[in-house]
Amino acid sequence: MTLDHGDPGDAPTVPPPLTAVADPARPSAAEEARTLAASTNVATLASLTSDGDPWASFITYGLLDGAPVLCVSRMAEHGRNLAHDPRASLAIVTPDPPKDPLASTRITLAGVVERPVGDELAAAREAHLAAVPAAKIYIDFSDFSLWVLRVQRVRWVGGYGRMDSATAEDYNAATADPISPVAGGAITHLNDDHADSLLAMAQVLGGFPDATVATCFGADRYGLDLDVTTPRGFAVTRVGYAAPISAIGELRAATVELARRSRISNG
Amino acid sequence: MTLDHGDPGDAPTVPPPLTAVADPARPSAAEEARTLAASTNVATLASLTSDGDPWASFITYGLLDGAPVLCVSRMAEHGRNLAHDPRASLAIVTPDPPKDPLASTRITLAGVVERPVGDELAAAREAHLAAVPAAKIYIDFSDFSLWVLRVQRVRWVGGYGRMDSATAEDYNAATADPISPVAGGAITHLNDDHADSLLAMAQVLGGFPDATVATCFGADRYGLDLDVTTPRGFAVTRVGYAAPISAIGELRAATVELARRSRISNG
Repeated sequence: MTLDHGDPGDAPTVPPPLTAVADPARPSAAEEARTLAASTNVATLASLTSDGDPWASFITYGLLDGAPVLCVSRMAEHGRNLAHDPRASLAIVTPDPPKDPLASTRITLAGVVERPVGDELAAAREAHLAAVPAAKIYIDFSDFSLWVLRVQRVRWVGGYGRMDSATAEDYNAATADPISPVAGGAITHLNDDHADSLLAMAQVLGGFPDATVATCFGADRYGLDLDVTTPRGFAVTRVGYAAPISAIGELRAATVELARRSRISNG
Repeated sequence: MTLDHGDPGDAPTVPPPLTAVADPARPSAAEEARTLAASTNVATLASLTSDGDPWASFITYGLLDGAPVLCVSRMAEHGRNLAHDPRASLAIVTPDPPKDPLASTRITLAGVVERPVGDELAAAREAHLAAVPAAKIYIDFSDFSLWVLRVQRVRWVGGYGRMDSATAEDYNAATADPISPVAGGAITHLNDDHADSLLAMAQVLGGFPDATVATCFGADRYGLDLDVTTPRGFAVTRVGYAAPISAIGELRAATVELARRSRISNG
């Protein structure tokens, strides 16, 4: 990032960590994009009219190995657009948005659409129906077609100041996070019953020895996201598990290990 | 609508009314579009990359007399796109979606963006901040610009089989519905305490003399939307007030008049 905002001087500042963050590992942009794409079945399609104008339209999709599968009618403008010019992109926004909309996680997947054939057509049909059960009513109407978006560019925005691009190769090779979509209950439990452990993690592993309160607001395969209160202001930090986990059932042991490591170093 | 779905023959059928619907008046596509545009502050922008490819991206907006006001950074791809080519469209989806995503109300507003100047710049800034309070943090950064979308085409989809286009003139002249966004409590009251009146309305004014149950699922400035159960199947119908209303406080008198008219005709 070489460009800088033209800051008039009154933007809020965030205190930096005072010590090294032990393990800042977090999901890659490609992994974040795959996770978000797997979390919903609605998106907005940008297609091109016959004049080459951009046309934004609401759409449903399923996923075939990360590639969005659309089912659109040639009676609809976006259906005619795709048949005329295969260039397309999809914007997907978290289905669980925060109060401040610009803090929302969102992605853009851009590329070209193709009509799947043979085995891929059958797989694409199943993928769409699995994500959009109501499509069974119209998916076999002769004016509807399936289209697979061949993703060529990926842009991920995780909220203010968290953004990155991913290559198509990385996007295709990545997998959706197995933890974050189902971590809500565990996060509530950590905040309700283990506030002292979270504070020790922020102080010892998270780089904020002056933290006075720490709250967990996210958990994924690599670690925990923490909100931190310090006398210098509010910040966020990251504590990484000893090793990545692959199922929600492994989260408890991973956080117990983090708490143990924080206590030992603290005491 | 001259095109027809290639119906394989097993789509659900809906029983038609048996008598004339007394007053089917309902909001126009232009009014529906203005109402939806006023109901949220997030949309998806379709812009054009320097290669002329479509680029879909999440965005926030305010409204200046129905024209979306965007605030974007030239550090963001969509900001560079708008500066390079003013053609743009916005897709807006109801912030209160039903379970079946394709039953969602959504619109596309298409046209060209312009940088407002003079009095319009000040008004556009206020309109954006009123809708997106968090923008106060960055709206004056030098890399951010305000853009007003000059709407040239409007497409409204109200769910399955409810869709229409509106001219820019009609869209600009229309106003957002003053009733539907605040009618939730009144609808609950009608369904909980006045089921007999709703049934009489469906039988006498709604064209379904064989209705056995009627439930209200919408209220706007012109009338009520009713779900109707009949021995022939499920249908929806419409009952229009004696005259349009302009404030939620007028809804009670309008529905009392509908109930009175249904009882008189029924008895």
